[in-house]
Amino acid sequence: MAEPEIDVVAIGNAIVDVLSQADDGFLETHGLAKGVMTLIDASGAEGLYAAMGPGVEMSGGSAANTVAGLASFGGSAGFIGKVRDDQLGAVFSHDIRSLGVSFTTAPATEGAATARCLILVTPDAQRTLNTYLGACTVLGPDDIDPETISAAKVIYLEGYLWDPPGAKQAFRKAMDIARKAGRKVALSLSDPFCVDRYREEFHALVTDGVDLLFANEAELISLYEAESFDEALQQIRGHCEVAALTRGDKGSVVVSGDEVHVIDAEPVARLVDTTGAGDLYAAGFLFGYTQGEDLARCGRLGGLAASEVISHFGARPETPLKALL
Amino acid sequence: MAEPEIDVVAIGNAIVDVLSQADDGFLETHGLAKGVMTLIDASGAEGLYAAMGPGVEMSGGSAANTVAGLASFGGSAGFIGKVRDDQLGAVFSHDIRSLGVSFTTAPATEGAATARCLILVTPDAQRTLNTYLGACTVLGPDDIDPETISAAKVIYLEGYLWDPPGAKQAFRKAMDIARKAGRKVALSLSDPFCVDRYREEFHALVTDGVDLLFANEAELISLYEAESFDEALQQIRGHCEVAALTRGDKGSVVVSGDEVHVIDAEPVARLVDTTGAGDLYAAGFLFGYTQGEDLARCGRLGGLAASEVISHFGARPETPLKALL
Repeated sequence: MAEPEIDVVAIGNAIVDVLSQADDGFLETHGLAKGVMTLIDASGAEGLYAAMGPGVEMSGGSAANTVAGLASFGGSAGFIGKVRDDQLGAVFSHDIRSLGVSFTTAPATEGAATARCLILVTPDAQRTLNTYLGACTVLGPDDIDPETISAAKVIYLEGYLWDPPGAKQAFRKAMDIARKAGRKVALSLSDPFCVDRYREEFHALVTDGVDLLFANEAELISLYEAESFDEALQQIRGHCEVAALTRGDKGSVVVSGDEVHVIDAEPVARLVDTTGAGDLYAAGFLFGYTQGEDLARCGRLGGLAASEVISHFGARPETPLKALL
Repeated sequence: MAEPEIDVVAIGNAIVDVLSQADDGFLETHGLAKGVMTLIDASGAEGLYAAMGPGVEMSGGSAANTVAGLASFGGSAGFIGKVRDDQLGAVFSHDIRSLGVSFTTAPATEGAATARCLILVTPDAQRTLNTYLGACTVLGPDDIDPETISAAKVIYLEGYLWDPPGAKQAFRKAMDIARKAGRKVALSLSDPFCVDRYREEFHALVTDGVDLLFANEAELISLYEAESFDEALQQIRGHCEVAALTRGDKGSVVVSGDEVHVIDAEPVARLVDTTGAGDLYAAGFLFGYTQGEDLARCGRLGGLAASEVISHFGARPETPLKALL
């Protein structure tokens, strides 16, 4: 079998973020659950947008942010996801390609508009996500090209793909191709409520099929319906080859069988917006992993990338991450 | 005649900014003149966008930024400008309305897309503007509602309106209505090359019709083809009731006949992006002016608003300006 030519190919929802500042009262008035991702439909998006303050539009999407970060470190990456052939689709496509990420998924030419995520950032730097999936709902197995998947050292999948119906099939198809080609499969659990929605399926994936798991504390606890982080940690050790577990300002824990690393968070001068923290942790980790670094170093690179992205608004690096190495 | 019900109505190009970081080499490679505004056509915009790094989309437009800033101080404002009924037009309309600015100009339902300005921010915090006017080219006198104009204490016009053909007529119509209603007419000279393109007409406007002039040093010198700022200053004193002249980190000079105020710039902890500095100076000045403050205080409020906007990316305030008072 040929050697892989690219570090990471990610599959995810192709989303443009609309970031706006809000206070806790706004979240309360609109019944928004702070810190998590809630799916909204077109009319819900319209209503919330009309109520929000002025916004800033930036390309987003969890797995897309991760490959954007990986490319910013100097890694090679591809992305598979579905936009529509509209202005926001052009923004998403431009931004990811301008970073050198290969993005060739055909845009939808009819139906729902490019997905957007209305993100409310509160003064405590927490972000509350409200996602209108739009064109992401038409991603399907036909969008998965076996050659692209087999060419990557790691295929990276976001748990959010379980929400749009066809994306799950695309996910499974890509996972099967990657495994047959002897590649590594990485999964991010995405969000505690996403884990709630698909716990059994995610459990099965983690036990059989996924080599690298990315999760934060709340997601991991939800996966195992555990009482504590440590209890969940003991379970994941037996299930995945590698698990990289983020804990906010407590840093991260990387486990692989008997090997356990507890890594402190990087200091941050000013915490502004936690949007993208997990996505960029995965970017740094995967950059190290695909360069053959040891797991402790991978975790530190993850923390480094996360610390950059939480020091400003938006889920993608403002500073080339390569410059931080 | 009825008392005015609103502080400022502005007429300007309705533009969404696309901000991206670039180095001097990029400007050189693409033949871009640093620090000024250059008009580009659709294919020029496409080519430059394809070459640019990842962008951040934010509502912009010079006069629109000014009323956004005025509203952020707590002033009342309206805006007249033309978008298309597309996604970026919806972004522009949402953002300005979310600040409480009345914006009722009917969007174009056919023809060119909503205008965008591709802004390259260099490490020295200078911004280089490349504007595709799009739907702005169909703004015309029919978009000027006499009641809206007469209801404002000040009507604020950007010099950039001289570029799209019909906007100049809209500008003149609005100016005539405002003068007949006994309102003040304010003009921003916008850009030194814009002054170069329309020097004779701007000269005539400043001499007869405009009560308040906003200009930076380069624009004022260009207007009078003067050798120095001071030489141009002596000329403007005889022409306009009030001139508010910005000089970057040297602060501003406000002149009204024999009254002259030399106002220091507000200190800025970190200069990030000068986009919107002049627009926000005008916002602070007009907020003071319409509240009946003296000219020195108006100039200081202008400096305060400008110092906020140059401390972060983008041409609109991140912090409610009211909070800085």
